[in-house]
Amino acid sequence: MEFSSKLLENAVYEMSQLPGVGKRTALRLVLHLLRQPESQTHHLTEALNTMRDTIKFCKKCHNISDVELCEICSNPNRDASLVCVVEDVRDVMAIENTSQYRGLYHVLGGKISPLDGVGPQDLNIYSLIDKAKSGEVKEVIFALSSTMEGDTTNFYIYRQLEAYDIKTSTIARGISVGDELEYADEVTLGRSILHRIPFENSLKS
Amino acid sequence: MEFSSKLLENAVYEMSQLPGVGKRTALRLVLHLLRQPESQTHHLTEALNTMRDTIKFCKKCHNISDVELCEICSNPNRDASLVCVVEDVRDVMAIENTSQYRGLYHVLGGKISPLDGVGPQDLNIYSLIDKAKSGEVKEVIFALSSTMEGDTTNFYIYRQLEAYDIKTSTIARGISVGDELEYADEVTLGRSILHRIPFENSLKS
Ligand SMILES: [Zn+2]
Ligand SMILES: [Zn+2]
Repeated sequence: MEFSSKLLENAVYEMSQLPGVGKRTALRLVLHLLRQPESQTHHLTEALNTMRDTIKFCKKCHNISDVELCEICSNPNRDASLVCVVEDVRDVMAIENTSQYRGLYHVLGGKISPLDGVGPQDLNIYSLIDKAKSGEVKEVIFALSSTMEGDTTNFYIYRQLEAYDIKTSTIARGISVGDELEYADEVTLGRSILHRIPFENSLKS
Repeated sequence: MEFSSKLLENAVYEMSQLPGVGKRTALRLVLHLLRQPESQTHHLTEALNTMRDTIKFCKKCHNISDVELCEICSNPNRDASLVCVVEDVRDVMAIENTSQYRGLYHVLGGKISPLDGVGPQDLNIYSLIDKAKSGEVKEVIFALSSTMEGDTTNFYIYRQLEAYDIKTSTIARGISVGDELEYADEVTLGRSILHRIPFENSLKS
């Protein structure tokens, strides 16, 4: 692409660094901003900067939060002996949306993926083991997507937890293997949390 | 969607104001930025702000440009008697890419679309008529996409130009009706400029 303006070229380049946004799409988005009042661009960039610079993660569950301890972790009506392990904030939102789960979460921030260079030390796994050590947790529910990376991560954590007296379970799957959690309908997802099975059982199948 | 953070919610909202970006996609993009170094967000927002605040349009052809008179308009080797009318900067880029055209451009900034509330006064049409009046222009080539709005715009300009001794033509279409110009392959697009036909002829077909 030959651009008539360096400013335009630079904006398109930076926009195309976003995942799934090619050069053509980036150009379309940038030209849209040019046609809108300047305020729209300013609102967008301020929202992104403020978020990126001041975002916090709950010190207990690592979910995105505007306060030190998120609303879920600080809610006395939630069952702190139950911890649901998820990949990211989208999965917390999806499960909360079902209104079926009353325990807490533990957000890993990704899945173990040797091909992408993501190992256990890159995820919030050690803090989960610490929770197990503390004796507060009675059951850990695995709710990662059922991909190879999800299975690998589940198994890694499962082995780490074996030393402690903790029940492990995985959410029941009414959804097909390989489906992303966040796209599941609420009923299926809610049911799969209620009908969770011991993790050992999931290994046999 | 129930967000655990107002900062996150606000960033997702602003991102989803972009065309074709739904809430889910916006959330995916924003979470990506959170996983990357802060510098990526800062580079993106700075590029967008700088572009939006300091962008210039060529005073002659209205193409996006970093200088008052764009490189094409200020090039003495280009034929100033030939003006190709296009919708936006993407079409200029597409035609320039063919290396088949040595005239100048006139960027309308859109198409006449009563349904979207876009009339002739919202586009760079009067400055095109002024060029015609000045006597500098011998031929106007219509290169808008062949949609209803494109045809309406062509015809409106055609009627305005009738008073002057100016040849009008439309690019020859090897591409199917309704196709966007910017997605045409270079060969087809280059050929369609070379084989342009008088605008009157295109009305008969
Ligand atoms: Zn929390
Ligand atoms: Zn120009």
